[in-house]
Amino acid sequence: VNRLVSWLDPRGMHTAAFLDESDEERERPPYWRFSRRLPPRGRIGILFGAWYSDPITGRVRKSRTREQFAEDLAWIAQIERMLTDDGALVVKLWFHLPKKAQKARQDAIVRAGQRKLTVFEKSYARLYNRFARVSEATLQFTDTGAAPWHVVEATDSHYRDMMACSILLRSLERRLHQSASVMRHCKVDQDPVIGQRRAVLDTVNLHSRLDLKQYAKKLTSEQCRLSALGWQAYESRRSVVIIFEGWDASGKGGAIRRATAALDGRLFQVIPVAAPTEEEKAQHYLWRFWRHLPRAGYITIYDRSWYGRVLVERVEGLASRAQWGRAYSEISAFERQLQDHGICLVKFWLHISPEEQLRRFRERRQHDYKQFKLTSEDWRNRKRRSAYEQAVDEMVARTSTEKAPWHLVAGDCKRHARVTVLRTICDSLESALRKK
Amino acid sequence: VNRLVSWLDPRGMHTAAFLDESDEERERPPYWRFSRRLPPRGRIGILFGAWYSDPITGRVRKSRTREQFAEDLAWIAQIERMLTDDGALVVKLWFHLPKKAQKARQDAIVRAGQRKLTVFEKSYARLYNRFARVSEATLQFTDTGAAPWHVVEATDSHYRDMMACSILLRSLERRLHQSASVMRHCKVDQDPVIGQRRAVLDTVNLHSRLDLKQYAKKLTSEQCRLSALGWQAYESRRSVVIIFEGWDASGKGGAIRRATAALDGRLFQVIPVAAPTEEEKAQHYLWRFWRHLPRAGYITIYDRSWYGRVLVERVEGLASRAQWGRAYSEISAFERQLQDHGICLVKFWLHISPEEQLRRFRERRQHDYKQFKLTSEDWRNRKRRSAYEQAVDEMVARTSTEKAPWHLVAGDCKRHARVTVLRTICDSLESALRKK
Repeated sequence: VNRLVSWLDPRGMHTAAFLDESDEERERPPYWRFSRRLPPRGRIGILFGAWYSDPITGRVRKSRTREQFAEDLAWIAQIERMLTDDGALVVKLWFHLPKKAQKARQDAIVRAGQRKLTVFEKSYARLYNRFARVSEATLQFTDTGAAPWHVVEATDSHYRDMMACSILLRSLERRLHQSASVMRHCKVDQDPVIGQRRAVLDTVNLHSRLDLKQYAKKLTSEQCRLSALGWQAYESRRSVVIIFEGWDASGKGGAIRRATAALDGRLFQVIPVAAPTEEEKAQHYLWRFWRHLPRAGYITIYDRSWYGRVLVERVEGLASRAQWGRAYSEISAFERQLQDHGICLVKFWLHISPEEQLRRFRERRQHDYKQFKLTSEDWRNRKRRSAYEQAVDEMVARTSTEKAPWHLVAGDCKRHARVTVLRTICDSLESALRKK
Repeated sequence: VNRLVSWLDPRGMHTAAFLDESDEERERPPYWRFSRRLPPRGRIGILFGAWYSDPITGRVRKSRTREQFAEDLAWIAQIERMLTDDGALVVKLWFHLPKKAQKARQDAIVRAGQRKLTVFEKSYARLYNRFARVSEATLQFTDTGAAPWHVVEATDSHYRDMMACSILLRSLERRLHQSASVMRHCKVDQDPVIGQRRAVLDTVNLHSRLDLKQYAKKLTSEQCRLSALGWQAYESRRSVVIIFEGWDASGKGGAIRRATAALDGRLFQVIPVAAPTEEEKAQHYLWRFWRHLPRAGYITIYDRSWYGRVLVERVEGLASRAQWGRAYSEISAFERQLQDHGICLVKFWLHISPEEQLRRFRERRQHDYKQFKLTSEDWRNRKRRSAYEQAVDEMVARTSTEKAPWHLVAGDCKRHARVTVLRTICDSLESALRKK
């Protein structure tokens, strides 16, 4: 790496090592740690070990079972696929060192007095064969077409450096010569199913109503419940992620405010999802959601979410068919990582009828202080209702899992919707807390 | 805060609490923790306690001496000044609660079963008088014209909420009506001294030379030294920040590469300072340097630095006279925070004569692979040499301190410069490691 660093212009690259895991990193799913160190578009990131170190050493030390190890490898293949689909070139170099050469290298470090060997390093000789076996399995499983492994014999350092650099050079050249059109073509990995079945949104009963008296009573009781549950989650270090999607004017803001009013202001963050910033655009589209994941015990509420990719970006043509087509599996993988880490994930779609939406738009136009909420975009989106309906339909069908189902909330009656949202959050949180 | 949050649009604001300090935060100067949670331009950030909590509770618990507490308050006044100078509106609300009312409030929390009181909270009653004294001192010292305190009687929660919101409203209104020109005027806080004395750069002996044999020998010995020192710093968790400034083509890149070649790639980051990103522009100009500060035991090398404000931004008119005028004191305060935290700070100015610079520009033009290094900007900068000289002169005069002196390196002979840079880094690091 030092050799590479001395050859490359530092303005186009950075290195990232993962020596000391911080508590901020431990409190989030494993990929969070790597996502914050990935290079933005147009730059080179040299990652030491990266997502391979922990699985391999964990398996060598037997702190990870065979099953966990298999899951790790599957997860790695997934994220590498995600990165290459997004246009990143992933070059993986494996430096092979025979047992004897390794011993000699370690002796040299000690002799030069550079630094002490760690306890783990000292066990290398004893564990060499086991290391070799685990590494081989890793290489075999993760040697994919999109991100192949290059094994380099590392005994002779000149040969090693020369090989590593020329592999990098060739990979870069090849990638730069691939035409953009071919790239786009390669990325179509699935043909999205367009809803032939009965639309799921039609199943929502929009006639549910709640009168003011019932509403006041239920709202207060659910808010008290949520308030206590928020502190319980904090104390048991259980994180919560809540996302709100829904039609324009379906009452997302009001529902969020009713929930946050019950929570202590120190425990949650509301992330309104608008156009990505420049730094966010320079990364995989999920990156801007990764960065806001809560630490242990905290709550993040996303007002609109990563599903924008398969909703507005799909309908408005902001994402290509290939991009939104593969987003379903990327999103599923992402959500699985959250759940595997123990994060309680709650997903809402607030549904309203087109008639109710029109009524609300008109009301907004009449009230001065509500006018800022209504833009020409809202009127345009309204015209595309059927295209959006199809997109919602497919989204729900493809991303509603047993652990993270979509909650379709009937929103024509705001009172009913708010109480339903609060109750659903409380129920989900309660069952998540019971599990621990 | 909950009341405010329910009234404000979440797209324009966020809240930040500082309950659990992470190790990533502890390993950097105190302000780092807050800088990462400050609102970008055009947004409202509601900070709980923020930089006041630790000084006050520390003094109440007597974990901080009277002198340390005084330093804390001076530091707070400084950063608030920095923020308001940058155009931020800082509204500080102090909620006063009489002893009896506090007790009643705590009892209510326990009765409602919301959460348990912390040990510290339980000691409130006993420490009330001490708290009151320390808080009063804090309020007095930090009640500045630019960021005044508003004390609100908090016994009655309706009165409290009403008062807090109306203070915020009035402050916002007043600030929005201030004309930009008045603002700019208010910010001129010092009249920069323009060098009448002998220019400091003239004192650099540009005739120093090193022949190839001496160079090879000295380079190797200093690199070995640095290699060992890098690991020592890591083991004793001592962070290092090195900055490089200098004329175009003065050999910054080459000097940096000679240093990094000696260091383990896992231990350092090189941050090339180019135009700020959108997210960086939306913050105080020092923010983009704060964000790259190293964790304990690591090294950050800035290729160009925060001094851009008083060099290129000053000469090219990218910063107003008021902005670069106050930058000297802002930079000094920033560097003091680094040093107080134990970070080893090394600052280089690489100096070359105009004749040598011209020679190098011509050389770059001739070599294909060096051409990308030469832009029209370089030629323009060259014409402004005397304006830059004046700026460098003043920069060195005003920001060279005993603990963080400027190292003016004679760069006409690249070999001499590289060895000098390496030796200086080693010497500084060695003396920093001795102190611990």
